[in-house]
Amino acid sequence: MVPAEPVATRVHILSSGARTEEQRLDCLRLIRSENVGPRTFHELVRYYGGVQPALVALPGLARRGGSARLPRICSREQAEAELKAARAVGVEFFTLGEPDYPARLRMIDDPPPVVTLRGKLEALARPLIAIVGSRNASAASIRFAERLARDLGNAGFTVVSGLARGIDAAAHRASLGTGTLAVLAGGHDRIYPAEHIELLEEILVEGAAISEMPFAWEPRAHDFPRRNRLISGLSLGVVVVEAARRSGSLITARFAGEQGREVFAVPGSPLDPRSEGTNGLLKQGAIPVTEAADVIAAIEPILGRGLSLPSAQEPSQESLASSGVPAGDDERSRLVALLGPTPISIDDLVRLARTSATNVRSVLLELEIAGRIERHGAGLVSLL
Amino acid sequence: MVPAEPVATRVHILSSGARTEEQRLDCLRLIRSENVGPRTFHELVRYYGGVQPALVALPGLARRGGSARLPRICSREQAEAELKAARAVGVEFFTLGEPDYPARLRMIDDPPPVVTLRGKLEALARPLIAIVGSRNASAASIRFAERLARDLGNAGFTVVSGLARGIDAAAHRASLGTGTLAVLAGGHDRIYPAEHIELLEEILVEGAAISEMPFAWEPRAHDFPRRNRLISGLSLGVVVVEAARRSGSLITARFAGEQGREVFAVPGSPLDPRSEGTNGLLKQGAIPVTEAADVIAAIEPILGRGLSLPSAQEPSQESLASSGVPAGDDERSRLVALLGPTPISIDDLVRLARTSATNVRSVLLELEIAGRIERHGAGLVSLL
Repeated sequence: MVPAEPVATRVHILSSGARTEEQRLDCLRLIRSENVGPRTFHELVRYYGGVQPALVALPGLARRGGSARLPRICSREQAEAELKAARAVGVEFFTLGEPDYPARLRMIDDPPPVVTLRGKLEALARPLIAIVGSRNASAASIRFAERLARDLGNAGFTVVSGLARGIDAAAHRASLGTGTLAVLAGGHDRIYPAEHIELLEEILVEGAAISEMPFAWEPRAHDFPRRNRLISGLSLGVVVVEAARRSGSLITARFAGEQGREVFAVPGSPLDPRSEGTNGLLKQGAIPVTEAADVIAAIEPILGRGLSLPSAQEPSQESLASSGVPAGDDERSRLVALLGPTPISIDDLVRLARTSATNVRSVLLELEIAGRIERHGAGLVSLL
Repeated sequence: MVPAEPVATRVHILSSGARTEEQRLDCLRLIRSENVGPRTFHELVRYYGGVQPALVALPGLARRGGSARLPRICSREQAEAELKAARAVGVEFFTLGEPDYPARLRMIDDPPPVVTLRGKLEALARPLIAIVGSRNASAASIRFAERLARDLGNAGFTVVSGLARGIDAAAHRASLGTGTLAVLAGGHDRIYPAEHIELLEEILVEGAAISEMPFAWEPRAHDFPRRNRLISGLSLGVVVVEAARRSGSLITARFAGEQGREVFAVPGSPLDPRSEGTNGLLKQGAIPVTEAADVIAAIEPILGRGLSLPSAQEPSQESLASSGVPAGDDERSRLVALLGPTPISIDDLVRLARTSATNVRSVLLELEIAGRIERHGAGLVSLL
């Protein structure tokens, strides 16, 4: 059994705590407006000091930016209509900073300002582990994904996946009883693929579905990589079971790396092109997985440390980011000792320092601010 | 194309340079005597200051050790008979320290004092890479081993293997044209398995067979792990293509790790028990291999550095071990920066420091002598 999920240790400019319905509507209006994605949302709020002033400034901003026509700004009525329609089928709205907003997701860069959830909220309270892979998976990999999902479910994890055909569906199905989380590329009212509507109903019994898109949003091609960012952002780690050379699962793995999540890959024969992607991940340093114990062994220390962190629910209103829980002197010097002029991956640092990814990020932030480290691409850092 | 093999950087108590036939006979007598293996050989020579005095001391030593009967000491006549019979079929004898003794092999702990070679000596002048695996290998792995051996052969390597059934035979066969080295568990006159006598003849055209055992030695079970030590000791790295849980190839991989050689493993499906061993190696940090380029990418930097080392042919007579070529200050501080209180594997150090295993070992030795590092099991070291 793995212990429960640690509390978040970073906050964003959105205040922590409950939201009035008015505040929630404003958040929804801003993120549902044309040309506003999570990154722009946070930049606007930071620049104008809040969601309301950002909404007010939006039209003038577009004009000054040289927009030929005014971008569509989500009206109060449209936002209310979405809330009403979605809530009618049991969808809940969580804005960033609210206590029920997913704990790990708030730690990523530019977290979604609003996520919508249908099903059992409790499924998110347990440690989340993603299992993803090809849609046209081999029978052997489907079988392996089922075994892994069942074992990780029984060990206390909620299995996260993308509701796609192949590996995703196998992972969800094998963890229906222990709770599984489907991350949607579209809205809750536009389940894709349609053949998985029944599977989703089964998922909702003990698990949940989550989305950052409008209730009635029909997913388009580029919504799937965006969905993948959510899959990794929600989870402690991502297990890629099978992936060909240019598989979408590799995008999830890349996000996981950037977000400081553990990346796991299931090895496969070099003669099988469907394993090219996972074997490539192994060459880049992903942790090999042949059984659930491999995942648990890598995640347990992170959780164990995470649990001992004090609660971080009390940052002040509109406080800026990065008020991390400070790492001990001991950990700091251990990390500095591990660092050198040769770039090393943050993943390796976490592993070698035997501490949590959160602590490592926090120490790196201090060192960065002190001008003592250099960040390279691909999650590599070195001492200056 | 990879460049040629670097020269040795460590010498042992046996002097470097040519041998008289008399000296060669003494070496052969000592190592062919009962209860004398390579380790005991070197201890005796070190303790008595030479091979001749050790031979003289042997009977008294056994008596004082409480031996019920005198151990069989190889007579001059017996040694001469072996030399004569072996040379009649083209077998050459190389004692440790002679210029033609294999370069990498002299760097391992307790190198065989005498090795015997049949075939083309030139095959040992190129960089050696071992390809090993199960005897009852899958067809897919046989095919992969062939492809890998052919590609590495064409890239300029001599492929080393154990002449066993399965992967070994496939690796030898695919590199017959570019030169391959068969490492024997018995003597040159007792080829095992007998069905590979024809294969060996083909190997000898461009390649060679090597053994540390007496010419007429029938291999017994425990001679195979001993043969595996030679396979890894001769090579820059060992590629394990397929290995079940308790495969002998894992012994070769363990020796390779202990000897500071690169360990490579070919990934396989977790549902295939014949890949359990190789996947286990990946979990322990072996470099994943799906094509020859993976091996070349890891070996080339080692060779590149190795080539720039000055020749180490001139150490004095009977000099003691460890007169390594000193690493530069730059490399030393880079390595120290990479070390910390958390044990790290020497393999990882080599990779992270982007230097040769030889340089890493040399710096570690200095640090060890300075009392600054601690060695743990399994090739792990930490800074004190």
